[in-house]
Amino acid sequence: MNTTPAYQDLAARQQRQHRLAHLQSIAQWDQAANMPAKGNEARSLALAEMDGLLHQLATDPALQGLLDAAAAEPLDDTQRSNLREIRRAWRAANALPQALVEAKSLANNRCEHAWRTQRPANDWAGFAPNLREVLKIARQEAELLSQSAGLSKYDALLDMYEPGMRGADVERAFAPLRQWLPGLIRDVIAKQSTEAVIEPVGPFPAAAQKALGLDAMKLMGFDFAAGRLDESTHPFCGGVPEDVRMTTRYREDNFLPSLMGTIHETGHGRYEQGLPRELLGQPIARARSMGIHESQSLSFEMQLGSHPAFAGLLSPLLIKHFGDQPAFEPGNLHKLLTRVQPGYIRVDADEVTYPAHILLRFDIERALIEGEAQVDDIPALWDAKMAELLGLDTRGNFKDGPMQDVHWAAGLFGYFPCYTLGAMYAAQWFATMRVQQPDLDARIARGELGGVFDWLSSHVWQAASRYETPELVQRASGEALNPAHFEAHLRGRYLGA
Amino acid sequence: MNTTPAYQDLAARQQRQHRLAHLQSIAQWDQAANMPAKGNEARSLALAEMDGLLHQLATDPALQGLLDAAAAEPLDDTQRSNLREIRRAWRAANALPQALVEAKSLANNRCEHAWRTQRPANDWAGFAPNLREVLKIARQEAELLSQSAGLSKYDALLDMYEPGMRGADVERAFAPLRQWLPGLIRDVIAKQSTEAVIEPVGPFPAAAQKALGLDAMKLMGFDFAAGRLDESTHPFCGGVPEDVRMTTRYREDNFLPSLMGTIHETGHGRYEQGLPRELLGQPIARARSMGIHESQSLSFEMQLGSHPAFAGLLSPLLIKHFGDQPAFEPGNLHKLLTRVQPGYIRVDADEVTYPAHILLRFDIERALIEGEAQVDDIPALWDAKMAELLGLDTRGNFKDGPMQDVHWAAGLFGYFPCYTLGAMYAAQWFATMRVQQPDLDARIARGELGGVFDWLSSHVWQAASRYETPELVQRASGEALNPAHFEAHLRGRYLGA
Repeated sequence: MNTTPAYQDLAARQQRQHRLAHLQSIAQWDQAANMPAKGNEARSLALAEMDGLLHQLATDPALQGLLDAAAAEPLDDTQRSNLREIRRAWRAANALPQALVEAKSLANNRCEHAWRTQRPANDWAGFAPNLREVLKIARQEAELLSQSAGLSKYDALLDMYEPGMRGADVERAFAPLRQWLPGLIRDVIAKQSTEAVIEPVGPFPAAAQKALGLDAMKLMGFDFAAGRLDESTHPFCGGVPEDVRMTTRYREDNFLPSLMGTIHETGHGRYEQGLPRELLGQPIARARSMGIHESQSLSFEMQLGSHPAFAGLLSPLLIKHFGDQPAFEPGNLHKLLTRVQPGYIRVDADEVTYPAHILLRFDIERALIEGEAQVDDIPALWDAKMAELLGLDTRGNFKDGPMQDVHWAAGLFGYFPCYTLGAMYAAQWFATMRVQQPDLDARIARGELGGVFDWLSSHVWQAASRYETPELVQRASGEALNPAHFEAHLRGRYLGA
Repeated sequence: MNTTPAYQDLAARQQRQHRLAHLQSIAQWDQAANMPAKGNEARSLALAEMDGLLHQLATDPALQGLLDAAAAEPLDDTQRSNLREIRRAWRAANALPQALVEAKSLANNRCEHAWRTQRPANDWAGFAPNLREVLKIARQEAELLSQSAGLSKYDALLDMYEPGMRGADVERAFAPLRQWLPGLIRDVIAKQSTEAVIEPVGPFPAAAQKALGLDAMKLMGFDFAAGRLDESTHPFCGGVPEDVRMTTRYREDNFLPSLMGTIHETGHGRYEQGLPRELLGQPIARARSMGIHESQSLSFEMQLGSHPAFAGLLSPLLIKHFGDQPAFEPGNLHKLLTRVQPGYIRVDADEVTYPAHILLRFDIERALIEGEAQVDDIPALWDAKMAELLGLDTRGNFKDGPMQDVHWAAGLFGYFPCYTLGAMYAAQWFATMRVQQPDLDARIARGELGGVFDWLSSHVWQAASRYETPELVQRASGEALNPAHFEAHLRGRYLGA
């Protein structure tokens, strides 16, 4: 006798949504990696149709009764956690009417597609009207979500990416950062100004960079039978856990952005590949949050990839693909990988100045969503904060300013803080690992990365969404989110203190 | 006031199915062109989920009432044609009970999967029981379709690929072929045995072949803003009309199969790209039939691609990508492209012997479906017809005999005649063009292919499914299907008569 019929019904519906979302996900990856220009309108309509269908399945009126009935069934812990996640997704989906879901998908696709040509043309005037439409819909969405969840408008959006985290929590973690970051940047720059660094001499052909990236992914344990690497304008990690689609882009004058970007996306990719396969299709098997996701990419790119000993692992790969040159000596390579230099572009930023880019975006997007700023205010706000935080003049340079990221064009307000939350979580994971594995740094120097991957797998990948974020963090590290680990990491690595 | 509410409802449902099928189509292309091995299970489940959903939409019980109501509404000619096509698709989807759809999918998948290893092992005894099951279900399907459409069993299957065409029509077109083809093959072989041909000297690197293929597609007018070329094990033309996805494969010892295969698929691709964009999403805007589709690929590959003057256009491209060599001289290249040699394998056959492979398959599959032959009869029938038509002994060679094609293993009975119908239509199109454009061959020699493409666009691509095939053929060429054009084409090209 089946004693959990309502739960089984819910689980079968989740499985069905997962399968349809698979097609959606591959078509989205294809849109960025392969699709020719004239395919965009039909693709956008097809994706919007599927968005609508998935929304319809997620808001089926039968769900409320099933959720209530399942709560009274004799579920085990796994089923209970899964039911919690099913309910969370159901609540979020039901906050938005179908028409808004469809209008959002259309406006975001249109804005993002146009952005691909507007950005290189520095065409803020062309971009702004599309962004206004995206923001208008995002504000409506925030308003409805905030009513349904009893949160402020920005918190309601943030909650979609970092469940349980509020703007005030972010501000609590970011407040000390605002205090010590400008001083740290100054100190690191002063220290590094006395150090000689040998520049790599290019060009570095894209084909050799691709081969290098594939070797780096192999070093980081990526499973090529369950994923691949391609090119797109804005690198991302998409696809499905069974078939992870990573992208990168190549600049022939400098191989480092693509190499370190690829290592970054490999962290996302291994998280997805490492989710519990036997539960795939159920919400409990999904990645916990964007901040936790970013803690994996930054564990790969920063904690490991920019580790002093990691340069010794990379150096032979560079020589293999580009031939030998003095810049590839491990000590010099480490200096290249940890050079701190305020710049315009977030995705090119070093580990130390990166949080400044996030503080700036967090402040602006929070004001945009709360209605305290408008699209036309963005350039002036941007210029002021770049001058204040990084001492840079960005006036008139929209393409390297507020047009540099895809996030707002794609309607992703509330996402940016996750990057720096992820950096903080990653520092906390490695602080914990060093306590549990005292020879960790020596092992990394010997290229034995298995201990790191095993720790991440058992504490983060396999846990997936079984626990809410605070419980996951507590179980993994024995304490709540503690931004002091991030400060200690940066001071230790960059000032030797 | 909306005077066509039922029609509008039907059209909106078609649009929705078209959009969902877009994602299905891109995911299928991706499965063949990109997907790593471990993605296959999840992808197959996702595609099957979508198959089920599309079948559910196509068999919605509300459709019958809507179709009847729409027939009484004041529709214009376009809407009336579209309604005819909607009804045709509805009848086909509803002829089969769900249990048979599932049994068919299971039997076909099992047979096709086993065939992949049984064929190289020449294992007819292992293959036959699976094929018996596939045939049993195909006969049930034919029986149900024939009752629903008032056709004979074979005609009911043929109608799915070549609507409006009956087995008797095919036989009327094939009867003269049976008379003159064996003699023509003999005469051409005798003529060619006196001619010297210089073989190309390889290897031909895949990257150079790909660049050549892209140049050939450009020459043939493919719109790269609405499609692309990739690689897959079995070449095909997929994607959607707005974004056509062609594939090919490369053999480094011989560039001709990939080059001519690419030109062939470009014909399919331009047909799709040339369908009436303002109607896309409605059945009236779909390609007319498999035979008409093949008439486009063969117009490109055979009528144009193997035209004596076309070698003069290809020769500079070969020299550009592979360097010069004596085999690339236009006269010699034309000889290479028109060499006739009876062989076992249909897909490797030349333009002259190809119809023999189709006559043989048409006769056998028609007898199988009508119940006049059984699976165990196939080898003897095959051997007899191969000896009679091509003078080849195939006894005991099942893998290069009745096991060479995927069609029957996959349950596709009724498809084969479309290949030769396509060759006949293509010859008829060019005969018509030559009357209307007396300098056609001189223009082709000058590389001015626009006149050909414009004719195909206005008579075939833009017509899409507005007319049933006989009317389309009549409007395009001023007469019904006339196989004499195909005979005249082959005699003219291969015997100079």
